[in-house]
Amino acid sequence: MIRTHATPHTPANEVDHPSSPVAVFGPDKPLALDCGVSLSPFQIAYQTYGTLNAAKSNAVLVCHALTGDQHVANVHPVTGKNGWWETMIGPGRPIDTERFFVICSNVIGACMGTTGPASLDPATGEPYAIRFPVVTIRDMVRAQAMLVEHLGIDTLFCVAGGSMGGMQVLQWAASYPDKVFSALPIATAAKHSAQNIAFHEVGRQAVMADPEWKAGSYLANGSRPEKGLAVARMAAHITYLSEPALHRKFGRKLQDRDAPTFSFDADFEIESYLRYQGRSFVERFDANSYLYLTRAMDYFDLAADYGGVLARAFKGTRTRFCGVSFTSDWLFTTAEMRAVVHALNAAGALVSFVEIETDKGHDAFLLDVPELIDTTRGFIDAAARARGLAAPPAE
Amino acid sequence: MIRTHATPHTPANEVDHPSSPVAVFGPDKPLALDCGVSLSPFQIAYQTYGTLNAAKSNAVLVCHALTGDQHVANVHPVTGKNGWWETMIGPGRPIDTERFFVICSNVIGACMGTTGPASLDPATGEPYAIRFPVVTIRDMVRAQAMLVEHLGIDTLFCVAGGSMGGMQVLQWAASYPDKVFSALPIATAAKHSAQNIAFHEVGRQAVMADPEWKAGSYLANGSRPEKGLAVARMAAHITYLSEPALHRKFGRKLQDRDAPTFSFDADFEIESYLRYQGRSFVERFDANSYLYLTRAMDYFDLAADYGGVLARAFKGTRTRFCGVSFTSDWLFTTAEMRAVVHALNAAGALVSFVEIETDKGHDAFLLDVPELIDTTRGFIDAAARARGLAAPPAE
Repeated sequence: MIRTHATPHTPANEVDHPSSPVAVFGPDKPLALDCGVSLSPFQIAYQTYGTLNAAKSNAVLVCHALTGDQHVANVHPVTGKNGWWETMIGPGRPIDTERFFVICSNVIGACMGTTGPASLDPATGEPYAIRFPVVTIRDMVRAQAMLVEHLGIDTLFCVAGGSMGGMQVLQWAASYPDKVFSALPIATAAKHSAQNIAFHEVGRQAVMADPEWKAGSYLANGSRPEKGLAVARMAAHITYLSEPALHRKFGRKLQDRDAPTFSFDADFEIESYLRYQGRSFVERFDANSYLYLTRAMDYFDLAADYGGVLARAFKGTRTRFCGVSFTSDWLFTTAEMRAVVHALNAAGALVSFVEIETDKGHDAFLLDVPELIDTTRGFIDAAARARGLAAPPAE
Repeated sequence: MIRTHATPHTPANEVDHPSSPVAVFGPDKPLALDCGVSLSPFQIAYQTYGTLNAAKSNAVLVCHALTGDQHVANVHPVTGKNGWWETMIGPGRPIDTERFFVICSNVIGACMGTTGPASLDPATGEPYAIRFPVVTIRDMVRAQAMLVEHLGIDTLFCVAGGSMGGMQVLQWAASYPDKVFSALPIATAAKHSAQNIAFHEVGRQAVMADPEWKAGSYLANGSRPEKGLAVARMAAHITYLSEPALHRKFGRKLQDRDAPTFSFDADFEIESYLRYQGRSFVERFDANSYLYLTRAMDYFDLAADYGGVLARAFKGTRTRFCGVSFTSDWLFTTAEMRAVVHALNAAGALVSFVEIETDKGHDAFLLDVPELIDTTRGFIDAAARARGLAAPPAE
């Protein structure tokens, strides 16, 4: 049994009744998770943009990052902000919604309408909390594949995403090579590094150290570990930027004052900025989801599923790849992307690789970086020609 | 009134009755702080090694880092571990205690016997907590200068230290140029960067988010913000290492297991290691001291006191300098040390500069890095000759 329904905008409960279309997968369609659990029922909240063509050959799946969601190119129902990838997706954009049918679904384990730890467990009538099974990047991709099938699409023209989204792109290409015509992994890696695991562990410990976390059962207890989650977000946020960008944007500038206050106030602009990042994040994100999604990233090691040889993950692939990295990204470095590209070369794949010079750090994939826009446009247009998709109408 | 006394080893109260000699400065010797407060009375806990020569020309002042203390070259009274710089200081070491009289004092604001937020405020009979005035690197150096005078020493043969200790070295050379014959700043900078301020702010917010912090008054309330301080330490600890070192030491190795547990246990060795770092730190460190000392580092901007021109801080100096940086230190980079060296050059100072190739990150200054040992030995020996100090006895 599969039902699709859209609910009205209810920011208070985006978790169970999101303001996005939802695909519900009943007992006949369980999600087989890597941990051995069969999750059922479950639902996937998603957004689409543009129109699926008659041949169903123009679908682009966008995969979101750790703290992203399905609201790629529309106003966010909770924050009221623009979609997180409007530089990339929309009419006339590189992933042109007048040409392509763009899908983005909230990942399994998240909190914007797809089943996750904040969702009600039908067996108990209470949120799953940390009784929710631990999920992996492969589980996210399995769920997306079920959604894509549900939408009647056999092959995706492109799978694209940055960071955790890029991990999903690589997993898609490995798990479903015949369903991915082209793949655009950005600012990502085939495995999570020790340093990245370390930063995630700090974030998880910050959440778990908050007594309002209540061993994960905060929702049932009417509380929220907001302080712990804000600290986790602040630490993570530093890693998304680069030292040169922090220096350029903030340096040692004082916040609305001429001299230090000799106190623990936010004297420096960077302090004030980080506190704001922490505060605003907790308004839209579930703390347990943060634990689950960071864990999924930590567990990601694509080569491990192929005897430790990454090239085997892509053996025989006919997918066209374009890997993108940023010079100042110290979370997912060019060296990590180069390792992916080498494996693709070893597998005989069609692959191009672009390292973009920028001081904007890991967050560059979300920003209006002209070389990223141009690279994506070039790659998508060439792939569309190869796929026999009509060129965009002349202006 | 100045008294010097040593108390027996009492690990439970190293704060007020440390197992180190203590110099007590009474109402006639207040410490004039940058914030405008005159701190009185106050005490400084310190260790010495070796013997002061008759000319009092062989004294070396060692300045400790954020979480260091005066126990440079003896077993630590709380942890039972060896001194934190035994690679560098001791008989036959580069700073040879058979040749030099080595002094290290706990900084003002810390918690191992020098007056800080955990000390009893004589005005209230309770710990100062956050009523303690905010201190600066210059305040730390002012207090050290009072100790050095108290010990009857006019000129220091050398002032040496890494990280926050290196900031004190630079401040000593600027504030008391005639009292510093040679200076060895290691892995440090003349100002704290935006990224470093950001990481410190995360640590402070982690402490303050812990309800056991109780607006700073935890000691009077019989509690301690151990979880928050542990998170702060974990985040900071990552920044002391380098990505290559983390990769080499931990990579994605699992901790005492063959497969992931699909849980939030410490599956990875790096997680287990970080949790240990957090736990062990809180046993020996006061949370409020962590707030004060990180703040002092954030406020450090030596050039700001000299019209923004760093070279002016060293105008006319006759001190011999040796600046040391490490290739993989991303907290205090070679570029930061180079800026110090350029300023010293512009001031016409005698300065040498060594960038040491290592993957050990910021922590390299504490470790047995052969090039660091050799550099220090060479610099100290040459300075000793220039100072007319006898060569070490032949073996």
